[in-house]
Amino acid sequence: MMMKRIVMKFGGTSVANPERISRAARLVVEEVRCGHEVAVVVSAMGKSTDELLALAGEVNSQADRREIDMLLATGEQVTASLLAMAISAEGVPARSYTGWQAGVTTESIHGNARIEQVHADKIIAAIESGSVAVVTGFQGVDDKGELTTLGRGGSDTSAVAISIAIDAAVCDIYTDVEGVFTTDPRLIGQAKKLEEIAYDEMLEIANLGAGVLHPRAVEFAKNHQIPLRVRPAHKDGVGTIIKEEIDLENNLIVRGIAFERDIVRITVMYDMPFNGSLANIFTALAHHHINVDIIVQTIMEGVQPSVSFSIKKEDFAEVINLLEKEKEVLGYSRADFEVGLAKVSIVGSGMVSNPGVAAQMFDTLRIASIPVKMVSTSEIKVSVVVPEPEMENAVAVLHETFGLHV
Amino acid sequence: MMMKRIVMKFGGTSVANPERISRAARLVVEEVRCGHEVAVVVSAMGKSTDELLALAGEVNSQADRREIDMLLATGEQVTASLLAMAISAEGVPARSYTGWQAGVTTESIHGNARIEQVHADKIIAAIESGSVAVVTGFQGVDDKGELTTLGRGGSDTSAVAISIAIDAAVCDIYTDVEGVFTTDPRLIGQAKKLEEIAYDEMLEIANLGAGVLHPRAVEFAKNHQIPLRVRPAHKDGVGTIIKEEIDLENNLIVRGIAFERDIVRITVMYDMPFNGSLANIFTALAHHHINVDIIVQTIMEGVQPSVSFSIKKEDFAEVINLLEKEKEVLGYSRADFEVGLAKVSIVGSGMVSNPGVAAQMFDTLRIASIPVKMVSTSEIKVSVVVPEPEMENAVAVLHETFGLHV
Repeated sequence: MMMKRIVMKFGGTSVANPERISRAARLVVEEVRCGHEVAVVVSAMGKSTDELLALAGEVNSQADRREIDMLLATGEQVTASLLAMAISAEGVPARSYTGWQAGVTTESIHGNARIEQVHADKIIAAIESGSVAVVTGFQGVDDKGELTTLGRGGSDTSAVAISIAIDAAVCDIYTDVEGVFTTDPRLIGQAKKLEEIAYDEMLEIANLGAGVLHPRAVEFAKNHQIPLRVRPAHKDGVGTIIKEEIDLENNLIVRGIAFERDIVRITVMYDMPFNGSLANIFTALAHHHINVDIIVQTIMEGVQPSVSFSIKKEDFAEVINLLEKEKEVLGYSRADFEVGLAKVSIVGSGMVSNPGVAAQMFDTLRIASIPVKMVSTSEIKVSVVVPEPEMENAVAVLHETFGLHV
Repeated sequence: MMMKRIVMKFGGTSVANPERISRAARLVVEEVRCGHEVAVVVSAMGKSTDELLALAGEVNSQADRREIDMLLATGEQVTASLLAMAISAEGVPARSYTGWQAGVTTESIHGNARIEQVHADKIIAAIESGSVAVVTGFQGVDDKGELTTLGRGGSDTSAVAISIAIDAAVCDIYTDVEGVFTTDPRLIGQAKKLEEIAYDEMLEIANLGAGVLHPRAVEFAKNHQIPLRVRPAHKDGVGTIIKEEIDLENNLIVRGIAFERDIVRITVMYDMPFNGSLANIFTALAHHHINVDIIVQTIMEGVQPSVSFSIKKEDFAEVINLLEKEKEVLGYSRADFEVGLAKVSIVGSGMVSNPGVAAQMFDTLRIASIPVKMVSTSEIKVSVVVPEPEMENAVAVLHETFGLHV
């Protein structure tokens, strides 16, 4: 087998205790024995980040983000040193590196910094000399020597950044699932593990809450054409490869079905004649950091103008507050809402050349007597909002219709 | 009150949980409210270092010291960030710094490095701007950017090094005891807290196992004339000041009584005529890193030449092994040992001008029928080895004789 340079990333559950750390070490050693140069990126052990935050909460309920970063950065450092020890115990030399030691520099922002550069000289020297380099994910250092953290999904992003910096052939993301599935196998027993998926498809699925990989990491990998592989840490398995071009023969029109519960639809109605701008309302929402997903506008002659949009339930109270407080400014006459909704999306890059896919989706839902409340489409995705009690059935009938069953 | 620059150091038991961290924060805030510029040095929380070592033991029983240092360095970082948060919660700005951020550079040795320099610009800038700087003790960074730890008592040494670097007026060491006592109050109820003690006296007491302060830190403070103050973290109290010159009126001839259990006496006998060198045996012991304490040599005409020395019980097996293996080389005829011994020492810088002190010590022990097995003297100390069951009584009668009772 040809020597390759690879990055292996282990998430929190895959290194939750010494036993799992030792198992991760054996996976690393297997790759080294294949002749590969290996850099490893780790998250904090299991729930340790939550435990650290609980300690912080006991001394200061409104602690400074800088100090939270100092505190949380210890989590990955513990994992990295333990994993390096565990790899050494298997007879392969290994060295751990903090984010700053590994040359990961970020913006000067605490809690949600973006990686600016990776000066990977040390890591490259280590792996070229036959050592495994174990790097703390989720963290870096700014130009003033301050520790920073990357926010949610940060370790995936670290793994991709390091893959780019050392020019890795592949970035393996080890998790507690077997790979990327056509839909959540906990919901649909016939869900099938995908062998491959395109970056853009994965982005839609990740954004829609599949939770396997952080969208930022997928986007980062896409921009630098680093193949990602989502693999199980707890058992054997090749996982799912995420890359740009996927084989035509595997190229199902619909590759997966994503879903999201707890959706609320808000409808805002205006008096006629309507001379205002709908932009006002979305500017106000953005100002309050409320993510709006699907937007449906109705401006037709003889009909009261209205706009509907979907939000997450967690933002509901804030949106209602905002609408009440800003009624004058926004200039609407009446607002309405509907709770208990869910979103179901079909995703696949083959859709763009298959205009009948959306129609097939609506037809399938109609036959199953599932009402569609809202619709939104993109080149590789069609999303519908349905009543939450119908969500599971919607996923099931679409999964079967588009040939995704095992 | 005049503005002073001070360093406050909190040991592991003083920051063992969030509640104690908040208490330490209030002590820091009191000093800030007095107008002082404050840098704080912290140890890892309570037993956290032991817990980290236990984790390491589970993945690799012979882990590399470099990785152990990476692991252990997280302990103080957790405390430092939590204490900074707790100080902020009291309304005083505070920032935590790791050893490398605080400019603490050390030798390139893992587990037992010595501090080489402290580039304290960041710390000075922080405290001059009105912030409290909270620095991780026990750790530094070498010239290659590798994390190092200082070994036992390292946080005390860090506190003194930072005191020197920022030119502090005093270095306060907060502990779980009220100060330095004439002897261990757990052994002798009438033991008295000392208001002051000289560096050299403290060095003898620290070396003799009083355990309040690490000798390396005391020596470091003495060399740079930084006054140390051992103070209780858990209650009010002025503690004990350790400095060069102490007030004559407080200048007791004997200032304290130290003791140490688990002493073994080894006696090695040589055939006559004795033409060898006793150096051989001590060279061999030093080579095996065995500390020899008291040495008594007998070379008299008509008597079989012999040398006795005391060691700690923990080294006993290794010494016996060594003596057996090297019998030929060392050229002795017979070796003997006596276990179940203890060492009792009277310490006081006034002794040097009071030649009768040793005689008074021996007389006191004779009256109490306590046999003296070995004797060793220095300018400020007289040590005797006695049977361990007699140790407590020896300390008690000497404590009373030399006027140390409350």
